[in-house]
Amino acid sequence: MNTESEPSRRTYSYLGPAGTFTEAALAQVVEARDQIWRPVRNVAEALADVVDGTSHAAMIAIENSVDGGVSTAQDALATVPGIRIIGEYVVPVNFVLVGRPGATLADVSLVSAHPVAYAQCLGWLSESLPEHAHVPAASNVASTLDLLDGANPANAAIAPPGILEHHDVELLAENIGDKDDAMTRFVLVGKTVTPPAPTGADKTSLIVELPDDHPGALMEMLEQFATRGINLSLLASRPIGDALGRYRFVIDADGHVHDERVADALLGLRRFSPKVIFLGSYPRADRAVVHYPERYSDEVFVEARDWLRGILSGEPEHGS
Amino acid sequence: MNTESEPSRRTYSYLGPAGTFTEAALAQVVEARDQIWRPVRNVAEALADVVDGTSHAAMIAIENSVDGGVSTAQDALATVPGIRIIGEYVVPVNFVLVGRPGATLADVSLVSAHPVAYAQCLGWLSESLPEHAHVPAASNVASTLDLLDGANPANAAIAPPGILEHHDVELLAENIGDKDDAMTRFVLVGKTVTPPAPTGADKTSLIVELPDDHPGALMEMLEQFATRGINLSLLASRPIGDALGRYRFVIDADGHVHDERVADALLGLRRFSPKVIFLGSYPRADRAVVHYPERYSDEVFVEARDWLRGILSGEPEHGS
Amino acid sequence: MNTESEPSRRTYSYLGPAGTFTEAALAQVVEARDQIWRPVRNVAEALADVVDGTSHAAMIAIENSVDGGVSTAQDALATVPGIRIIGEYVVPVNFVLVGRPGATLADVSLVSAHPVAYAQCLGWLSESLPEHAHVPAASNVASTLDLLDGANPANAAIAPPGILEHHDVELLAENIGDKDDAMTRFVLVGKTVTPPAPTGADKTSLIVELPDDHPGALMEMLEQFATRGINLSLLASRPIGDALGRYRFVIDADGHVHDERVADALLGLRRFSPKVIFLGSYPRADRAVVHYPERYSDEVFVEARDWLRGILSGEPEHGS
Amino acid sequence: MNTESEPSRRTYSYLGPAGTFTEAALAQVVEARDQIWRPVRNVAEALADVVDGTSHAAMIAIENSVDGGVSTAQDALATVPGIRIIGEYVVPVNFVLVGRPGATLADVSLVSAHPVAYAQCLGWLSESLPEHAHVPAASNVASTLDLLDGANPANAAIAPPGILEHHDVELLAENIGDKDDAMTRFVLVGKTVTPPAPTGADKTSLIVELPDDHPGALMEMLEQFATRGINLSLLASRPIGDALGRYRFVIDADGHVHDERVADALLGLRRFSPKVIFLGSYPRADRAVVHYPERYSDEVFVEARDWLRGILSGEPEHGS
Repeated sequence: MNTESEPSRRTYSYLGPAGTFTEAALAQVVEARDQIWRPVRNVAEALADVVDGTSHAAMIAIENSVDGGVSTAQDALATVPGIRIIGEYVVPVNFVLVGRPGATLADVSLVSAHPVAYAQCLGWLSESLPEHAHVPAASNVASTLDLLDGANPANAAIAPPGILEHHDVELLAENIGDKDDAMTRFVLVGKTVTPPAPTGADKTSLIVELPDDHPGALMEMLEQFATRGINLSLLASRPIGDALGRYRFVIDADGHVHDERVADALLGLRRFSPKVIFLGSYPRADRAVVHYPERYSDEVFVEARDWLRGILSGEPEHGS
Repeated sequence: MNTESEPSRRTYSYLGPAGTFTEAALAQVVEARDQIWRPVRNVAEALADVVDGTSHAAMIAIENSVDGGVSTAQDALATVPGIRIIGEYVVPVNFVLVGRPGATLADVSLVSAHPVAYAQCLGWLSESLPEHAHVPAASNVASTLDLLDGANPANAAIAPPGILEHHDVELLAENIGDKDDAMTRFVLVGKTVTPPAPTGADKTSLIVELPDDHPGALMEMLEQFATRGINLSLLASRPIGDALGRYRFVIDADGHVHDERVADALLGLRRFSPKVIFLGSYPRADRAVVHYPERYSDEVFVEARDWLRGILSGEPEHGS
Repeated sequence: MNTESEPSRRTYSYLGPAGTFTEAALAQVVEARDQIWRPVRNVAEALADVVDGTSHAAMIAIENSVDGGVSTAQDALATVPGIRIIGEYVVPVNFVLVGRPGATLADVSLVSAHPVAYAQCLGWLSESLPEHAHVPAASNVASTLDLLDGANPANAAIAPPGILEHHDVELLAENIGDKDDAMTRFVLVGKTVTPPAPTGADKTSLIVELPDDHPGALMEMLEQFATRGINLSLLASRPIGDALGRYRFVIDADGHVHDERVADALLGLRRFSPKVIFLGSYPRADRAVVHYPERYSDEVFVEARDWLRGILSGEPEHGS
Repeated sequence: MNTESEPSRRTYSYLGPAGTFTEAALAQVVEARDQIWRPVRNVAEALADVVDGTSHAAMIAIENSVDGGVSTAQDALATVPGIRIIGEYVVPVNFVLVGRPGATLADVSLVSAHPVAYAQCLGWLSESLPEHAHVPAASNVASTLDLLDGANPANAAIAPPGILEHHDVELLAENIGDKDDAMTRFVLVGKTVTPPAPTGADKTSLIVELPDDHPGALMEMLEQFATRGINLSLLASRPIGDALGRYRFVIDADGHVHDERVADALLGLRRFSPKVIFLGSYPRADRAVVHYPERYSDEVFVEARDWLRGILSGEPEHGS
């Protein structure tokens, strides 16, 4: 009986195991409630699940991440074809230091942590555990589990607070991150589909390769947005990898591909760039309505096309 | 019998009388041979002939003119609706000094000349006739005729060389212009029609008003061309006339409105500017083929539109 | 006795005769009161007076002029060396139609007027005197005087209102200009001297030749101002005269050469342009204080130089 | 006696232990031969050695690194005061897979590797060892040593080829990197000093924070270089870390701070940016002479200053 309904449930991949920040992001997705949550080990696996149909969508950290981070995900989005970003979620980042049951802070000499999490807690560690050594980990949650079953030689691990709900660990310290307001931004990635309808509070993600490495090329790319009144909320350079000094740019632009100004900017980018990848138009995590000057409204674009059509058909202009 | 064929002949207006540089420009128009040439007194009259159907077309001087000049014509094109430039012609500018039959250079004390022609011969006049005084004229040819019949108090007139073929004047000096290679550019203006087919050696004339007077607005306008690989062969500022510091720009851009890059630039200008006037796309006087980077070719524009259409319809990208 | 004090009086040249708009501009110059006012016939003569020491300064119309106009003056400033603009004055432009004593409007058939003044009254003339013909004049005031003594065949003349104070003419119509708020801007030109002290409400006049004719060159020139927060109140293109399509630009920039941002822009222009002429820094006619972003203040420039000096001398940076 | 000469030897810190790519970079430094080479565990330690005087200089990987990488080093340079880059070195990147003496490729199930090195060999690993698991390591060389003494549970390690010269390991596979021409760029960092004399083949490294997050700010920054003919060989964005969407840019610009155009660009950047850090001017690793348009030469800058000085002192211009 259960099996009848099972096929209709959707699978969502996320960087596991349970307790990660990525799981906290997935918990924000209304459509994912009561669906199947599939923990994976890295971004490549998450995207592969989407591409081969194992999962309906995958949650991955995209900016300022602590569990695997920006550049891996950005590079994956740049190279895996057939995927689209369909949603954005932001999770506050905070850390706890945990040990085996019964451990105390005074006992800690070896701290296991993902290098990025480690870097984000370095101030607290230097002050509270000046003699500690670092054991790098591929995943904070996974290494904490290794700590519990003895596979990890460390005697403490940095972990997200969610670990406390899932496992029997000793809480050694809370709020050990050096920045109170740290955030990680996640995106939900699905298969290529037609973009969802605009909500008025959307962003569009792109990856653009520059035609060559002179600074004028970057300015020319930026003008494609500026000349249409489009603000960028993310602009990150990533080496293309074929030679020193060659870059692609990861871009989040305000607006939706169904907006005339955004579609026109995409046309300009496509003509300009040897490679531009459309990653998707989707609602912003903060639901902030996109504002832009009236002169870039859809009506202005439509009116200009009508005007040009009149010119081409030989109509006299009226009160142009 | 003659009347039967007369209706089929076309009328061309030009700044007369016979002998002007404008007539020399009209003589270059193959289609105007054996048609009716109608001399008029100024640009406004010439354009009015076109608008009210008196003439099929009118020849007017547009740049570096000596018979009435740039700004009058540019302002007229900016304000008279329903007209289009359909051709461009260039005439070398040279001047003679003429008097009544029997006159000699030694007798000359009062020189009649249009102010622009006068300015172009000032070096020669200062050297050869240091004591002369200037009688300003509305037209060099007309004032020469006035000289012949006594209505003009001057005893010499500056005139185009063509005057010698039409009238019995005494040639007092030749080649008196201060610049050997002076040229005047003329345009043939007709009623608004669909633009003629591109020849590959075309230019497009525009008048664009800036949205306001800050320097950024001009840069933004220029970017509409630069970002599409379009060179400008003319960029002239003209006061709009409603306040100090407000300008419109008279522009000749390489290419034809049927070229994708030019049409796209027109759309950009139209969205940006409170007023943009399309004056026409027509063959260049010098027949020089327009060259532009391959990345601005029609194919690139078409390909970008196909790509965007694929995105909007949810097609996966192939080898983008 | 009078002769003793005479040598101490200064001479000011202006486009005469008495009654012109230029004289009205000169009347605004406090320092010129009770000095010698020398009427001249054209801009070239006025500037020559300054260069050869005949006059201390000369008043010339520079923008939207009605008595000889913009382009002549701009071209003269571009080519006469050794001069500087030392002040700016604005005069409202208005016209009267005058005739010989006893004349009436109904008698008028021939109207004498400078072509620019004629153009500015064309609306009124077309409506009130539809049958009139135009007699072009080199100067409105001079031609009015010719009208009075019979040397001018016209039976009415367009003139500035000032004519009524100096001559016995019949006023046929007032306020005949088509634009109520027309203005002419004049500059007072003297010999090259050190610039006067800044007042906070200054402008700087320049003439800049572009290195070549591509649109990028103009954008690059404009960036020299934009990148230093300097607004332009005048930007006029003028053909250089050696070939079609080559331009120089006449520029009025907000600020004074003693302002760091303006001096730095001048350095940038000089490096960029084959020819840049500094025409002067002087108080604005409207005495409007120049506002600019704090980041372009003198202090910011001084601080940056101190910082660079520290780098070059190997000092460690403090809280940069 | 030995002790007498010891003090005169200089200490160079590098990411150790012996056998790393960083050591290979240090081996390129002529001045470092026969000096003391001090292995350290991370970039922070290397820079601290310089700041506290323990070492004369430190070699750190800066771009496309495999032993700890770009972002850590870039962030360290942005935040540690009192240091300067004094040289640049490039090392080809290649990898070997090694095991304990007697091991064979068929035995390998657990591969130890720094995550970046792991990512660079993923293609080879997926093909040759499809069943392997990854043990993340903080350092490839250190984890190889742990492998040899049993502290590392892995049975193979990815390492730089240099490991073969220093340790008794079994070579399991060579050239396992997925890119044949991978390179890592290193910089040698010392205490703040006056910049070394220009060689004509120099670069200048900077870190610039944007005043705010709109795209126009980045374009304005890039213009500071473009408007002075300066090419950029590196432009990398790094989050500032205080909020999502705020970036600093790591820049390598062609030329030396002793070049007029570079010094002028630095002044422009300093005025524009809330924070700009000068990291140094130093010879390029490839010794390629920097070419730039003649109009940006030192002579042009000097001439412009002389011209401005003349203006300010009231000298008439000569043939400007």
